[in-house]
Amino acid sequence: MALFSKDIKTLDDLFVHTLRDVYYAEKQIEKALPKMIEKAGAAELKQGFETHLQETRQQVERLEKVFEMHGEHPKAVTCPAIDGIIKETEEVAGDVADQDVLDAALNAAAQAVEHYEIGRYGALAAWARELGRDDCAALLHQTLEEERATDVKLTRIAEERINRKAA
Amino acid sequence: MALFSKDIKTLDDLFVHTLRDVYYAEKQIEKALPKMIEKAGAAELKQGFETHLQETRQQVERLEKVFEMHGEHPKAVTCPAIDGIIKETEEVAGDVADQDVLDAALNAAAQAVEHYEIGRYGALAAWARELGRDDCAALLHQTLEEERATDVKLTRIAEERINRKAA
Repeated sequence: MALFSKDIKTLDDLFVHTLRDVYYAEKQIEKALPKMIEKAGAAELKQGFETHLQETRQQVERLEKVFEMHGEHPKAVTCPAIDGIIKETEEVAGDVADQDVLDAALNAAAQAVEHYEIGRYGALAAWARELGRDDCAALLHQTLEEERATDVKLTRIAEERINRKAA
Repeated sequence: MALFSKDIKTLDDLFVHTLRDVYYAEKQIEKALPKMIEKAGAAELKQGFETHLQETRQQVERLEKVFEMHGEHPKAVTCPAIDGIIKETEEVAGDVADQDVLDAALNAAAQAVEHYEIGRYGALAAWARELGRDDCAALLHQTLEEERATDVKLTRIAEERINRKAA
């Protein structure tokens, strides 16, 4: 979000700025997930993260399409929120001694990432509709639904297995 | 999350650590909201933030109760995630020239905060149940439902008025 002062004058500017913010976030998530896959113990969690890594790559491509449809070159701006969420994940992962407890922590960290994305894509899709860009809104909504589905899947994995094993 | 290395050995440790993390987050949100109230233009948004500030104070007290019920003194540990989310809010708010667009940005920022809290309280409530602390889970679930209700309210305000005015 490191723009020069008062550079956002219209909802269109805010939309493009937030696209850049989420583009940065997705790229950081793409870098963080392989480390989380490596640290995960339970096969189901590892597999869940693998699937989400593939989805993240598609979501990056989908964002690039939205930029192009809106006449913008894909560009990233630093997003302190995702940096903070990933930093926290790495810190807590480094503090956990037991593999089952680490799995519970990693699952919760992944859900924090999902929730951040759900919030951002929800705002982006709503703004796209308001700007008359139903084409962009449809793509953003597709990612929003994927993020929601991943969150539901992680909740199920946590409640059925991971948390029980950690307790 | 600045613990010494490998200090989290059990799910109980992870639960207490995450309680401290959320306790810090709520206190930072309590400090950030008055600035957001000041910056908000639309009466409905200002009122929404005012209500959430009152709720946040109750949620802090509820967390203190959970600490006590679990035999712990309330204590906060730095949460880089909420620091990042609040930093991003302040940066983007400083970049917006138009009041209606600023309202759209503030509303989206508040939803990012809500989503972070929903993720954390969801994990905490699930872990409390797994640890046999249904008493703590009930209080944490109460906050979780409040956060979800606030998110729904902010979505409604955004879609019915704020985004339209900004477009």
